[in-house]
Amino acid sequence: MNVIRARTAGFCMGVSLALRKLDREVDRAEEKAAQGSPRCRIATFGPIIHNPQVLEAYAGMGVRCLRQVDEVEAGDHVVIRAHGVPQQQEKALRSRDAVVVDATCPKVKKAQLGIEEQCRAGRTLLLFGEAEHPEVRGLLSYAGEGALVFGSVDELEGLPLQPETEYFLAAQTTQDRVAFEAARAWLHERLGHEVPVLETICDATRLRQQEAIDIARKVDAMVVVGGFDSGNTRRLADVAAAQGVFTVHVENESQLPVEQLRGCGIIGLTAGASTPKSIIDATQRFLESL
Amino acid sequence: MNVIRARTAGFCMGVSLALRKLDREVDRAEEKAAQGSPRCRIATFGPIIHNPQVLEAYAGMGVRCLRQVDEVEAGDHVVIRAHGVPQQQEKALRSRDAVVVDATCPKVKKAQLGIEEQCRAGRTLLLFGEAEHPEVRGLLSYAGEGALVFGSVDELEGLPLQPETEYFLAAQTTQDRVAFEAARAWLHERLGHEVPVLETICDATRLRQQEAIDIARKVDAMVVVGGFDSGNTRRLADVAAAQGVFTVHVENESQLPVEQLRGCGIIGLTAGASTPKSIIDATQRFLESL
Repeated sequence: MNVIRARTAGFCMGVSLALRKLDREVDRAEEKAAQGSPRCRIATFGPIIHNPQVLEAYAGMGVRCLRQVDEVEAGDHVVIRAHGVPQQQEKALRSRDAVVVDATCPKVKKAQLGIEEQCRAGRTLLLFGEAEHPEVRGLLSYAGEGALVFGSVDELEGLPLQPETEYFLAAQTTQDRVAFEAARAWLHERLGHEVPVLETICDATRLRQQEAIDIARKVDAMVVVGGFDSGNTRRLADVAAAQGVFTVHVENESQLPVEQLRGCGIIGLTAGASTPKSIIDATQRFLESL
Repeated sequence: MNVIRARTAGFCMGVSLALRKLDREVDRAEEKAAQGSPRCRIATFGPIIHNPQVLEAYAGMGVRCLRQVDEVEAGDHVVIRAHGVPQQQEKALRSRDAVVVDATCPKVKKAQLGIEEQCRAGRTLLLFGEAEHPEVRGLLSYAGEGALVFGSVDELEGLPLQPETEYFLAAQTTQDRVAFEAARAWLHERLGHEVPVLETICDATRLRQQEAIDIARKVDAMVVVGGFDSGNTRRLADVAAAQGVFTVHVENESQLPVEQLRGCGIIGLTAGASTPKSIIDATQRFLESL
């Protein structure tokens, strides 16, 4: 089988930086333990990234995944997930007697602070994103009252917009750029004027989506590898499928629908920002062997 | 006068994120003071970025620039400079009863942790950078013993390399890419094998240098605006001048050599990663009025 693998497939800067920060804590704890000091507990606050194999590997190294601030014990080293956390949680975390390492993706951090600035200037947030995604919950904590979230232009159309409110528009950093532009255009039409826009969708997302679209147009099927929890991976599958090509989203090569793929002449392969290279490599080898 | 302004001129992500973090501390302190709480002191640890006008503006807002850990007082909010600091200093800072906000550029943070990882694996750092630059001093703190710094291939040639040592190569994030490649090639030749390389020069730097080169080849003179302390701005002037065009590095438009520039048909304009848009705009207007 011929496979076209996206050059943008795999870890983005935010993910590799977050894992590097976590690795560092793990390594240091090992070193201290080897020198005879009591082993300190390493934890992440929420899953560090949305990839099951990566999370399993860290769990195997003894890294705990905490969900509540009161699970934190004195002396713990707690790494804040790449998606960021609500600011109240971060504050509560920092008030515990623990070492807090912030591995929030820099693009997310910039979006959080940009949203806070706009709200401070008296504007109200309209956020394009998945209401239940942890990044979105974090972003919302930096917005003032009245912020609204929508996941599609349809949902935007249903929001109770107030004529006297001054809105601004922002997006989850991994959102679909084309849909975001559509939302912007609809708002302009609806309100009769341009609204201020924070350009929060990150370049890595944009380039990855564009390459997925370009490849999808040239192949008989698209394979997207990455965590099912991973929003950016799911959207990658969405934008590929929107090109009218048979698209499958799998977490690893064992989930591939071999029979459907065998008939293809050429297969495109891409992966989310949280998918390790080893898994993309294994999937590529498997596809090539078909 | 016709002016070609580089699209890459001005703040990079690391700078705008750092300033946003500092702005947030300033805004919050104002708010608290307005509510009647005692005003907390805001400080940066070292100059937040290398631009004199920006630093002056923060000084005018009451932001102090600390140089020593023992200048930190209980309750201070201390923002770590965008260039990063040596890890021993960060640790000492965090041991004070102060709120520490890390505004280290994410690309620098990644370089710091990448260097630490390589050294942990038993390799020795060869760092291409300015020995006295704060970023370089920070990077070196993450390297083990025996790390060597060089500022040019000439200097690299003079280093006492040990045949039995396993080296790796990295660079200050704002270094000249062409010179870095030359260093890599020389090392390969000298040691008889490739050395592992950390790709630490950031994309913003690379794109900015490339655009400066492209513009320099088309114009009669190049103007580079930015702090004299700013390494990336100085190197931008270097790479432009290396194209054989008359190049001036100024901090603002009042320093422009008007007589020399007046005879030019077309002038190129670029700026470092820490130069505010307002200063680039003013310089452009001034040049266009010649």
